Amino acid sequence: MDCEFSSRIGHVPPSFLREIFRVIADERIISFAGGLPNPNLFPTAAFARAMQATLDESARSALQYGATEGIPELREVVAKSYVQKDDIEVSADHVIITNGSQQGLDLLGKVLVNENDTIAVESPTYLAAIQALSLYRPSFLSVPLNDNGLDSNALEAVIEEHAPKLLYTIPNFQNPTGLTYDDDVRKRVVQILKNRRTVLVEDDPYGEIRFEGERRTPFAKYKDDAVLLGSFSKIVAPGLRLGWIVTRDMDLYDRLLIAKQAADLHTSSLIQHVVYRYYRDNDAQAHIETIAAHYKKQKNAMITALHKHLGDSITHTNPEGGMFIWATLPERVDTAKLFRLAVEEGVAFVPGESFFTSDAPKNTMRLNYSNSTPSRIDEGVRRLSRALDRYDF
Amino acid sequence: MDCEFSSRIGHVPPSFLREIFRVIADERIISFAGGLPNPNLFPTAAFARAMQATLDESARSALQYGATEGIPELREVVAKSYVQKDDIEVSADHVIITNGSQQGLDLLGKVLVNENDTIAVESPTYLAAIQALSLYRPSFLSVPLNDNGLDSNALEAVIEEHAPKLLYTIPNFQNPTGLTYDDDVRKRVVQILKNRRTVLVEDDPYGEIRFEGERRTPFAKYKDDAVLLGSFSKIVAPGLRLGWIVTRDMDLYDRLLIAKQAADLHTSSLIQHVVYRYYRDNDAQAHIETIAAHYKKQKNAMITALHKHLGDSITHTNPEGGMFIWATLPERVDTAKLFRLAVEEGVAFVPGESFFTSDAPKNTMRLNYSNSTPSRIDEGVRRLSRALDRYDF
Repeated sequence: MDCEFSSRIGHVPPSFLREIFRVIADERIISFAGGLPNPNLFPTAAFARAMQATLDESARSALQYGATEGIPELREVVAKSYVQKDDIEVSADHVIITNGSQQGLDLLGKVLVNENDTIAVESPTYLAAIQALSLYRPSFLSVPLNDNGLDSNALEAVIEEHAPKLLYTIPNFQNPTGLTYDDDVRKRVVQILKNRRTVLVEDDPYGEIRFEGERRTPFAKYKDDAVLLGSFSKIVAPGLRLGWIVTRDMDLYDRLLIAKQAADLHTSSLIQHVVYRYYRDNDAQAHIETIAAHYKKQKNAMITALHKHLGDSITHTNPEGGMFIWATLPERVDTAKLFRLAVEEGVAFVPGESFFTSDAPKNTMRLNYSNSTPSRIDEGVRRLSRALDRYDF
Repeated sequence: MDCEFSSRIGHVPPSFLREIFRVIADERIISFAGGLPNPNLFPTAAFARAMQATLDESARSALQYGATEGIPELREVVAKSYVQKDDIEVSADHVIITNGSQQGLDLLGKVLVNENDTIAVESPTYLAAIQALSLYRPSFLSVPLNDNGLDSNALEAVIEEHAPKLLYTIPNFQNPTGLTYDDDVRKRVVQILKNRRTVLVEDDPYGEIRFEGERRTPFAKYKDDAVLLGSFSKIVAPGLRLGWIVTRDMDLYDRLLIAKQAADLHTSSLIQHVVYRYYRDNDAQAHIETIAAHYKKQKNAMITALHKHLGDSITHTNPEGGMFIWATLPERVDTAKLFRLAVEEGVAFVPGESFFTSDAPKNTMRLNYSNSTPSRIDEGVRRLSRALDRYDF
């Protein structure tokens, strides 16, 4: 075509993901690369009942156009969970149902970000958040992540100097590192943002999948205008593409609704009705605990295998929940190069470089444990150690 | 919140739609306002079977993350329909599954439109297309619509003078007018665009719902790089939020994929699997013919009622398919003002003004007939004539 593309679309960083998807389609490869929940744990039978109940009870509204913000019953499910778990005053009127939390990022970018605005992000941060926000052509500011959360001195300096439009965070079992913010760090972040125009965004797709330690408090408990992004992808199933935004700032809410309406009118009514009934008729919390119990075993299997097969060659995080371990290899190792050898050996991971908006170290990687059995995890890490042996020769 | 919103979101024109949705929630109002398909015609039983078959056959992939472009089986369904109906060379590789055709508009805006680019649109045109594209801050150029399609002299002048980035068209049973382009006009449009950089977009959500006359040929038959937007909303059910983009320009395809990935990773795998099985296991064409037969009766009922109750006070289009009639009242009538009286009388429509990007006449309205029975249509038009009587006093 002779047409010119928008400058915007040229601004999106190339993603390693497509190559990864190609590689992991090969069944012989053990993949620690994706962020796939374990499909053995999908609540298929409960879903079949919820689908039937939807068509029996509400076929006409489930198949018809609906309100942009989503169906009231499902927004109520979301609101209640914040009230019950954290005693945060959230009502259904503060919830917009989205196509996964990914769409929440796109809508926030649309509504808030002008070209050359600054956005502060954790370093490293979620790859697809960088992609989604990049379309609105901001400058990213990296704030280093420590073992107990965002580096608050660095954050303070960034906020002072740049007054960024957004601070995007994943405080629980962060993607890609698996790290979690202490409550002290959370309070400190809120304090730093007090009386600042920076919008604090908490993306929390993994928070429910905690298998060790104590539940932490969402930012919205300490800060009324924090924006929450959530998702049914990890606690029910990702193929639904169902998530939400919560904001108690009704100006922002209204603008997000305009953007959502322009983007796709609303999220599938059918899927919303089915998931509402899944919650109504099942013990969703018990199911989440089952997922967490499995992931705990898988995480432990990976930690054990890393020690057994890679020993001193690697340092790594030890997450209390979620789906990812972040590993650091000796400085001589470029994980983008190691990736080719690893695939030859039959194992895949995501080279860490993709998760940085600047100053990316070459020797890091993200390892996913949620989609492999303990024995496959052991075998995969063994293959990884063979790849590393070959790298060194 | 103290934050500043993006300039982009302030650029979206206010929509009359929310007020309309409020009004039509009242059961006592006969609504010709929405664009809702008739819910009595939703294939509910077939859907129940398709859902069960999906979970029996493919629960793991239907509930898991999937490829951004959509599942191959459903892309194949879309591609085949162009091959079979119009002998256009479209393959599954040219199809991206979207959240309704509305998302196609957002993705095209993202990928093609820079601020101050020009976009040519029919005058009047689809309200939500104006909204979706407005976010990317273009200037709109209006091209008048005649009874047989776009005014080609006006189009030629616009293309010569402005070389717009996009020409957005709805050539079959246009929303809001119900008008259809003759094949001659189609060929002329393609000729005018030859060797121009303007991307021709054909949005065709209604084309299958033809109840009179002969099927017309999509632009893509005459122009390889025409972009097609399609939707399952009117031929299956809108609550699915399922549509598609077809482009055979692989550069554009790749960029649309990047934008789709950033927007929401992919469209619900579950919905895609269900709709694929609905097509596989049912005579979808027979179902479309049933819809068309009903809409024909409803359209005829509305034409009859308009003559009976409004007589000489109104001129109107007489569509060969789709869901809308466009009516023009005497110049003294402002339909935005008439709307209030009409609601008091218990009937709603969309004032025509919302469908124009410039030079909106005040005396037009869009009437939807797909969501009312013939007797409700007669009663609704009677109420409309009472509102008009009151307007004149």
